[in-house]
Amino acid sequence: MKFGGTSVGEADCIRRVADIVEPHHRAGDEVALVVSACSGITDQIIAIADEVVKSMEQPPIGAFLAAMRTRHTRLLGEVAPDYADEVTAVIDDRLTRLQNILTAVHTLKELTPRSRDYIISFGERLSAPIVAAALRQRGIPSVALDGAEAGIVTTANHGDARALPSSETGIRSRVAPLLAGSVPVIMGFMGATEQGVVTTLGRSGSDYSAAVIGAGVGADEIWIWTDVDGVMTSDPRIIRDARVLNDISYLEVMELSYFGAKVLHPRSIEPAMQKDIPIRVRNTFRPDYPGTIVLRDEHREKRVVKAIALIEKVALVNVNGAQMIGRPGVAKTIFSALAEREVNVMMISQGSSEANISLIVDESHLEAAIAALTPIAKQGVVREVTCDRDVAALAVVGAGMAGTPGTGGRIFSALGRAQINTMMISQGSSEVNVSFVVKGGDGKRALQVLHDEFRLSENSDD
Amino acid sequence: MKFGGTSVGEADCIRRVADIVEPHHRAGDEVALVVSACSGITDQIIAIADEVVKSMEQPPIGAFLAAMRTRHTRLLGEVAPDYADEVTAVIDDRLTRLQNILTAVHTLKELTPRSRDYIISFGERLSAPIVAAALRQRGIPSVALDGAEAGIVTTANHGDARALPSSETGIRSRVAPLLAGSVPVIMGFMGATEQGVVTTLGRSGSDYSAAVIGAGVGADEIWIWTDVDGVMTSDPRIIRDARVLNDISYLEVMELSYFGAKVLHPRSIEPAMQKDIPIRVRNTFRPDYPGTIVLRDEHREKRVVKAIALIEKVALVNVNGAQMIGRPGVAKTIFSALAEREVNVMMISQGSSEANISLIVDESHLEAAIAALTPIAKQGVVREVTCDRDVAALAVVGAGMAGTPGTGGRIFSALGRAQINTMMISQGSSEVNVSFVVKGGDGKRALQVLHDEFRLSENSDD
Amino acid sequence: MKFGGTSVGEADCIRRVADIVEPHHRAGDEVALVVSACSGITDQIIAIADEVVKSMEQPPIGAFLAAMRTRHTRLLGEVAPDYADEVTAVIDDRLTRLQNILTAVHTLKELTPRSRDYIISFGERLSAPIVAAALRQRGIPSVALDGAEAGIVTTANHGDARALPSSETGIRSRVAPLLAGSVPVIMGFMGATEQGVVTTLGRSGSDYSAAVIGAGVGADEIWIWTDVDGVMTSDPRIIRDARVLNDISYLEVMELSYFGAKVLHPRSIEPAMQKDIPIRVRNTFRPDYPGTIVLRDEHREKRVVKAIALIEKVALVNVNGAQMIGRPGVAKTIFSALAEREVNVMMISQGSSEANISLIVDESHLEAAIAALTPIAKQGVVREVTCDRDVAALAVVGAGMAGTPGTGGRIFSALGRAQINTMMISQGSSEVNVSFVVKGGDGKRALQVLHDEFRLSENSDD
Amino acid sequence: MKFGGTSVGEADCIRRVADIVEPHHRAGDEVALVVSACSGITDQIIAIADEVVKSMEQPPIGAFLAAMRTRHTRLLGEVAPDYADEVTAVIDDRLTRLQNILTAVHTLKELTPRSRDYIISFGERLSAPIVAAALRQRGIPSVALDGAEAGIVTTANHGDARALPSSETGIRSRVAPLLAGSVPVIMGFMGATEQGVVTTLGRSGSDYSAAVIGAGVGADEIWIWTDVDGVMTSDPRIIRDARVLNDISYLEVMELSYFGAKVLHPRSIEPAMQKDIPIRVRNTFRPDYPGTIVLRDEHREKRVVKAIALIEKVALVNVNGAQMIGRPGVAKTIFSALAEREVNVMMISQGSSEANISLIVDESHLEAAIAALTPIAKQGVVREVTCDRDVAALAVVGAGMAGTPGTGGRIFSALGRAQINTMMISQGSSEVNVSFVVKGGDGKRALQVLHDEFRLSENSDD
Repeated sequence: MKFGGTSVGEADCIRRVADIVEPHHRAGDEVALVVSACSGITDQIIAIADEVVKSMEQPPIGAFLAAMRTRHTRLLGEVAPDYADEVTAVIDDRLTRLQNILTAVHTLKELTPRSRDYIISFGERLSAPIVAAALRQRGIPSVALDGAEAGIVTTANHGDARALPSSETGIRSRVAPLLAGSVPVIMGFMGATEQGVVTTLGRSGSDYSAAVIGAGVGADEIWIWTDVDGVMTSDPRIIRDARVLNDISYLEVMELSYFGAKVLHPRSIEPAMQKDIPIRVRNTFRPDYPGTIVLRDEHREKRVVKAIALIEKVALVNVNGAQMIGRPGVAKTIFSALAEREVNVMMISQGSSEANISLIVDESHLEAAIAALTPIAKQGVVREVTCDRDVAALAVVGAGMAGTPGTGGRIFSALGRAQINTMMISQGSSEVNVSFVVKGGDGKRALQVLHDEFRLSENSDD
Repeated sequence: MKFGGTSVGEADCIRRVADIVEPHHRAGDEVALVVSACSGITDQIIAIADEVVKSMEQPPIGAFLAAMRTRHTRLLGEVAPDYADEVTAVIDDRLTRLQNILTAVHTLKELTPRSRDYIISFGERLSAPIVAAALRQRGIPSVALDGAEAGIVTTANHGDARALPSSETGIRSRVAPLLAGSVPVIMGFMGATEQGVVTTLGRSGSDYSAAVIGAGVGADEIWIWTDVDGVMTSDPRIIRDARVLNDISYLEVMELSYFGAKVLHPRSIEPAMQKDIPIRVRNTFRPDYPGTIVLRDEHREKRVVKAIALIEKVALVNVNGAQMIGRPGVAKTIFSALAEREVNVMMISQGSSEANISLIVDESHLEAAIAALTPIAKQGVVREVTCDRDVAALAVVGAGMAGTPGTGGRIFSALGRAQINTMMISQGSSEVNVSFVVKGGDGKRALQVLHDEFRLSENSDD
Repeated sequence: MKFGGTSVGEADCIRRVADIVEPHHRAGDEVALVVSACSGITDQIIAIADEVVKSMEQPPIGAFLAAMRTRHTRLLGEVAPDYADEVTAVIDDRLTRLQNILTAVHTLKELTPRSRDYIISFGERLSAPIVAAALRQRGIPSVALDGAEAGIVTTANHGDARALPSSETGIRSRVAPLLAGSVPVIMGFMGATEQGVVTTLGRSGSDYSAAVIGAGVGADEIWIWTDVDGVMTSDPRIIRDARVLNDISYLEVMELSYFGAKVLHPRSIEPAMQKDIPIRVRNTFRPDYPGTIVLRDEHREKRVVKAIALIEKVALVNVNGAQMIGRPGVAKTIFSALAEREVNVMMISQGSSEANISLIVDESHLEAAIAALTPIAKQGVVREVTCDRDVAALAVVGAGMAGTPGTGGRIFSALGRAQINTMMISQGSSEVNVSFVVKGGDGKRALQVLHDEFRLSENSDD
Repeated sequence: MKFGGTSVGEADCIRRVADIVEPHHRAGDEVALVVSACSGITDQIIAIADEVVKSMEQPPIGAFLAAMRTRHTRLLGEVAPDYADEVTAVIDDRLTRLQNILTAVHTLKELTPRSRDYIISFGERLSAPIVAAALRQRGIPSVALDGAEAGIVTTANHGDARALPSSETGIRSRVAPLLAGSVPVIMGFMGATEQGVVTTLGRSGSDYSAAVIGAGVGADEIWIWTDVDGVMTSDPRIIRDARVLNDISYLEVMELSYFGAKVLHPRSIEPAMQKDIPIRVRNTFRPDYPGTIVLRDEHREKRVVKAIALIEKVALVNVNGAQMIGRPGVAKTIFSALAEREVNVMMISQGSSEANISLIVDESHLEAAIAALTPIAKQGVVREVTCDRDVAALAVVGAGMAGTPGTGGRIFSALGRAQINTMMISQGSSEVNVSFVVKGGDGKRALQVLHDEFRLSENSDD
């Protein structure tokens, strides 16, 4: 049984999906598809909803719907001509519902989070029937299911809902039976509360849907189809010889994503990690390329350092002179003040009392951090608060470091040879990640130096 | 003008002090002495006070006082025979006062912090007149002053009082005039509130007295006389070729002292650092040896790494899985819980969300730390709390690291070559200190490896 | 200039309104009318809105609107035949808007407070044009204005909005100019936020509208047209010879209304009291009867007791044994606990420490009060909490009591002669009101006894 | 078995005590005596303690002790000549201990609450042995016991300690066995913590001791010997024909004491009330007069009104205009503000929303009350806070009022006939007390009017 979350949009895309699914289906593999809206559609829907609620005059709902109809029926005609009439009727029915809702929002001049979620879900409501029809066109039995139909029960937190544990039962009873003999097409990014109110799942919601569905049916693997070849050793825009990894562990990829690697959102990893189901990151445009497999570290060949991430828009905040009044109270005071201002702290380092507590925050949070900490300095809890805006943070990630003494030495020796000074270092005891901070101007160079040092462009697995 | 804090106790000690002071006095240098109680005396006084308040029967106050008289008058006879009668009268007067106070405490069965401080101060009240007489015996004019007489005004925080800023005026008007032509002998470890109530200054109080007095009179140097040759590159009980440093900066010595180097307590450094007065750590038993001078880093020759400290009785606490609910709130929750249990955190490292927040606490605080953090895990704020008891923390200290890329590399490469794994690393942005944690069994070896790596046994200043 | 808030509904009602307004208009008086929805209409609108949001099938919006149209156009035909076509068009337009909104709510399955307020406002949106037409039919120029058009700017507290001070300017610039030569008909019960969102004003909202408009235009008098002759000496359902008062003060009528007399809600009195504008309570069905005038007490003939109110569904709560720990803290603890449970306390009496604090609460709040106070007793803050469900509270109201010693004596002597025991008494220092509590079974009899004692059925003003 | 708390001081006093005790003892009644210090002695001891701790020079401890010795030995010689030597030795021993303690306090210059309590207890430590000797002189076996010896175990709240429940066991095992054949003389006003540290019991502490001892041994009656004939119908300094009551209930006498009647402190009533032991208030100077017996109301003949109390130094505070925001929250806000300023509220009345909440506070708390409430008015929680300084509060007390309708009428009719206006009335549901407030100038007259109205000078029991 395999699984995929994918973008659709052009006829070619859908054909590629079908091309991927077909051989697996023929081979007897059980497959379920999770699909997003056609590319650009969700943004267009959000735009019309925002216009509709504000507009004092008659908003262009008709023109919008006509454009939506044209795009989706054309796509349908290309990928599933035999089902054009049948599925056009479905599309028309959904567009009518969308029209009613947009009109209602315009009438009431109020776009509640609940209505907004429902409206946004129409992107998937239009794409999924087309994908299912495209499969049927190839002789693969297929039906489209929305989130609720697929059993995804969520919190009522509109716009950022989470799947509840009860989803597992729902998915098992609703999706699993369809797998024998057909390929269900599930609308990603959406679910419904226990009361049946439609919700959306927030950023990376369709990957998250795929992971939840995969965990629910107990899949062998979850495949995430993207437009890149997999998880890379570093950012290829900076490191020319960055390479796609064959495998990486759940923890490693989480570390990378916190340091800005966009491939997989941590929330999409959790459901798979809990069930120990591998996630395979693949490229729709290179279906033959195996991509990167994400799994527990026990399963794969170890390599000391797997990847290196760089974040450039960060700032370093130093809280100095805290020793006079006992450290426990000071840390509490500092982090309470930061929490109140909702400052997200990416790195913390405190190695002795006097020197300070050093923090790395996103540049956009720096002002709030300073505003939070300045009063503490005025009250004399700490001596001073200083900051350095022009810094970059790097994370050297690799579960193998835990058992390889000297990795730290290689990291910092390489930097030293390159005359790059580290302003702050933090390595927690998970030993999956050594993070450090350098001057802003040294960031990219440090990335290259370490990428070279650990020969990440060379495929050790070969 | 020079300055010293010293232990006295045997005739030889006092003679050594006089030997040190005399040539400076003859040479026209202005000198003030700060003295402690005779060795062992303060503990004996605390013991009798504790016995007196509990004892339901007549406590042995008489025997105690007789022993005190014998020891102090014998010492007096040895070092200042010409002043034996005069100073014996002073000693007898003070012992009578001490008797009255101990009797009063016994009568009331209550030892308040105020009474306790007053009682403890008698150790210095007995030693200082003897030292002053010993100087007079050599022809050096000298009077003994208690803390209040010397102008040290403190907070009312009995047992751990701090000098108030107003002390400076007091010291200048009371001690400074005596410096021309005489050597005042000031009782360390004590002061008095603005209302005149006697207070004591807590641990290392007599070094702190010396620093406060030195800052008050605007001394050229503050000399701290100890029983070691100075600040060392490492603990000589572990590192045979540990070497005495010629100089070290205020910040460096503070870092070392937080990592357990006992030479100078940070509170004794502050008054000097604020006035930029060098502190010289010297050995009473080797008065010709120059010792180590502590000063601002601008003044001294740089060396990348100055010293390395090791603490063995520490534990590593990992707080894992905090990412789900936003880090700022989690850090607040963690440190509030620790503060409530009064857990002192020596090191903090957090380099990404998932991996964890790693903390180093004193082994004696581990149980409290676990008790504080376990409920947080139960509430689901974090996934789990684990700990590792058998670890050691090391601090590599040196202000020169800030400008020397590659120091980190040398540290961790040396450890790697020795197959020593680092479990946690923290380097704050002051860059005076790189702290790291290794397995308990690797602690001493890591210390030796790095002491060798940075050739700390070789005197680069030579 | 005169003013009125009135119920409309049947042709006769509207004719009566016109009959009342016409002579004033002819006489050159400036008049503005504030009108409610036709009787029963608001409840019907709320019912359909609640049905529409819940109904999974097509709700009977069409039938509802048809019935609304029939009722309003028939009324229109009766009272303003010459304007039937013109105003029918207005009615149809508004019904179409209402249809759109109800449909939108059905579509979105969500009835927000904002939408609800807007829907409810349609009762007045339909009645006001008919009343204005009826006046035009008689040759009186008249236009209908909704709350926003009349300048009523409110808080955004949907369902219970309050007029903001800026309303005064709005009313002055929008309503006042219409008064010369025409009789504006203003829709009561509604306003709009500064952003133009429609709000409703809560209970007695149309009286409140009248008071706000009257205060805004600086009316000579505000007339509240009701179906009773005025404010009575007591409840005529219990006291047969209860009599209509010629006058009463603002404070007196407020006291009565807190004790359940429904004539005027305190919030309708405030705007008039602030501007010292008399309110006249009159009976639509007896337009020649002068009714009761409400004004400042300085203006009117004093009478010791003006009226007596009875509330029967109340309970007495005793908090005993609070003396042990100081009363200030106890009162704080008690009232904090009650506030947390949102218990409304109608009477408080505490005359000494031991005896207790006695409270009167509405019977519907009793359970919450006991739930709030029982933990306090368990913690030992008070000894016990007891309650008596079967009690009645009476308020003897009259500003004249303040200067008439012996009124209390007359009250309690009369009760004593009737063998009625008072369980609790409270007279605050305003001296406008003596409140007391009797057994439930004695309530009505106590009311009659005191009504007789103070000869309230006799008109002293004659 | 009978019981008494009494003042001693002159030989005559002690003889009177012996005269009272002797016949009871001869008659076989079991009697225990609780005695205070000799009159004036406690104040003298407090004065010397305060002088001793402040004095920088040698305080006049010797002169003080000599005077104490003279007074007590003279008294001893007069009342117990046969035991002069034996008891003088006891007195001398205690004076020596007192001398030691005062000297210790002078030495340490610190008078802790613990030392203060111990010092104060010496008044009773000196008087009790003399009283016991006086009884022995008459052939009545007697020993003196201090509080700890009598089994009174207290909280550690020095200066205002309370007996713990465990005292009952202690008293039963220590005092009860002595009652057969002897008359123990127990030092009042003192107890000891479970650790044996001496405590004092605060105001009226020796009455409280008597009540605790009486409850502990399960006495038939507790006799409180005073210098008045009993509890009176009113203050005899104001009401010439005020009369001693034959009996009064626990609750009634508590109410009176809260309104300033000094006869019995509520805390002295509680232990007796809990065990249902009558307290008899008697006059040492008229031992044949039966005094007033305090008991549960079931036991005694009812009379509607028993007594009337007046407090003149009070102020009336009005909090007006609280209705706008819901009463529960307002009461919470008001009483929280008052509690924070430690304002004691003697009466509360709130009979409706608008009128206000009226409060009576001690004149000395008025400033704090205004300071507490003014910010609330500024925040708009209430409209205004006003006060009236020149008022008097009266309490009409009588458990019989509960069953006698018309009592309220008699009270307020009588006041009305006298042209006395009531500004505030409060009757809680215990119905033991009707409290009201009049102008300051009317206070005494109101007291006389009501004393006459209820014929309190006539003994209805006769």
